[in-house]
Amino acid sequence: MKVHLVGGGAIGLLCSYYLARAGKNISLLTRTAEQAEAIKEKGITVIHKEKEQSVSLHAMPLDEWGDQSSDCLILAVKSHQITSVLEIIRNNRINFDHILFLSNGMGHIPVIYELQTDFKAAVGVVEHGAVRKSLTSVNHTGAGRIRWSPINFSKKELDPLWKNTSSIGFPVKAETDWIDMLQTKLIINVCINPLTAILKVKNGVLLENSYYKDLVRPLFNEAMRILNRNDYDEMWSLLAQVCEKTASNQSSMLTDLLKGIPTEIDSITGYLIKEARKNNVPHPYITFVHHAVKGLEV
Amino acid sequence: MKVHLVGGGAIGLLCSYYLARAGKNISLLTRTAEQAEAIKEKGITVIHKEKEQSVSLHAMPLDEWGDQSSDCLILAVKSHQITSVLEIIRNNRINFDHILFLSNGMGHIPVIYELQTDFKAAVGVVEHGAVRKSLTSVNHTGAGRIRWSPINFSKKELDPLWKNTSSIGFPVKAETDWIDMLQTKLIINVCINPLTAILKVKNGVLLENSYYKDLVRPLFNEAMRILNRNDYDEMWSLLAQVCEKTASNQSSMLTDLLKGIPTEIDSITGYLIKEARKNNVPHPYITFVHHAVKGLEV
Repeated sequence: MKVHLVGGGAIGLLCSYYLARAGKNISLLTRTAEQAEAIKEKGITVIHKEKEQSVSLHAMPLDEWGDQSSDCLILAVKSHQITSVLEIIRNNRINFDHILFLSNGMGHIPVIYELQTDFKAAVGVVEHGAVRKSLTSVNHTGAGRIRWSPINFSKKELDPLWKNTSSIGFPVKAETDWIDMLQTKLIINVCINPLTAILKVKNGVLLENSYYKDLVRPLFNEAMRILNRNDYDEMWSLLAQVCEKTASNQSSMLTDLLKGIPTEIDSITGYLIKEARKNNVPHPYITFVHHAVKGLEV
Repeated sequence: MKVHLVGGGAIGLLCSYYLARAGKNISLLTRTAEQAEAIKEKGITVIHKEKEQSVSLHAMPLDEWGDQSSDCLILAVKSHQITSVLEIIRNNRINFDHILFLSNGMGHIPVIYELQTDFKAAVGVVEHGAVRKSLTSVNHTGAGRIRWSPINFSKKELDPLWKNTSSIGFPVKAETDWIDMLQTKLIINVCINPLTAILKVKNGVLLENSYYKDLVRPLFNEAMRILNRNDYDEMWSLLAQVCEKTASNQSSMLTDLLKGIPTEIDSITGYLIKEARKNNVPHPYITFVHHAVKGLEV
């Protein structure tokens, strides 16, 4: 099975590493020629529980990729980068059977709906903590799993992609309800990401500090109402679990802000604000954190 | 006229300095013996437009002050410190004719109402920018004025206090409507202080960054509605003027947070939340900044 993965960020490096170690024929497509060169030379290194391990794999800059075919294309890029990546893929006449989107939020859902007629599309959510340390290495700070769900094909078709991954510490779970799966991740993201970015705190502080908890709860309630969910208790305890498990992690949104690069705020709160307006649901807390993060990005 | 001023913070030092320079017989009451000693030795220094000037004056620790009388007592302490300062004043049998409160917010209004039967009480708002540099020196970063208003006496009675102050760069304006005066300051405070503290920005950024402006406007609207005001245009342009005039200033709330000392959040947003509940006015933005600042204080 020929796999191509687009994206040399923390999640892209992490997934490429484990898929390569599980024996997949995987090529990593990077934004810069510099990163592709570095990976061709050194491979990818993952640091997990103070242990470093490397694997070698093929890499090339995304815009040099042309006229090739792929059994499965994985997009591990930010939601706002999807359109331009798909443009390059179209222009370079890349053929692929399946495409799997690993972006955060739900901002890319309209793009996927458009694609659906042409391709076999799937979405996934990444429950790993990972921080990129260099062009070729990534710190695997929190071991989680990948949950994924096909949109318009049978999940069996991607069995070969995940073969042997669980046994090497990279478990994968196939879900049947992709909307529920993305919404669940979105609710967790909207509670954790903007607040940790605004308040500059680690994930665990949000529910430990009782005043911050009074910010999380109404954000959570607004998101649940906007998405028309009624599993309040289950979702809240899931959120609490995630905060606890990733207590000492710095959220990706805080990391992005501190690095001075664009955050995924539009595909998280931006998406929810659009939905709230459509359905006329009040959303002052979500609006507050949206404007605050947009302002901090300036 | 014998004047006693309680409070050795930025505003206390600034007012003591100008009142002493205007020829008042003023004693400064400090919280610590260390600060009183330093002031007795070195006087108070004010740095304004890169020029340093000093004046000598009497100082003593508040708890050593006893059995004395005062024509006018000025309280330049934080709102939440007023009750304990009044306790000391009562226990030490200090007599005074007039008492002027210079605290921010409106949290101290109930205390003033209680006092009214016993004393001639007045309130004031300080429109100066000032940052304390040491125990005896203060940086006068923004020249403004003092506005004050008597609650239960004729404003002529305090004319001697303000004699000669304007001519030395410390203008004072007497107002007749003390509630309007405090509300105006409160509305400006609720728009500037919590947001600058949460976002860690100088005052000017709030209206320059269009996303932050989208946070200021609803905060402003909520405060106006809670206080049942309808002079939206005048108040907004006053707020804009203050942001512009103090553009490069760091708000007192951000300064307190960075120093790790309690902020005046309870007498600003805390007061407004209580009023909003009484009158059943929605106040999600004020609640948001209240919880965020309370959490940042922890």
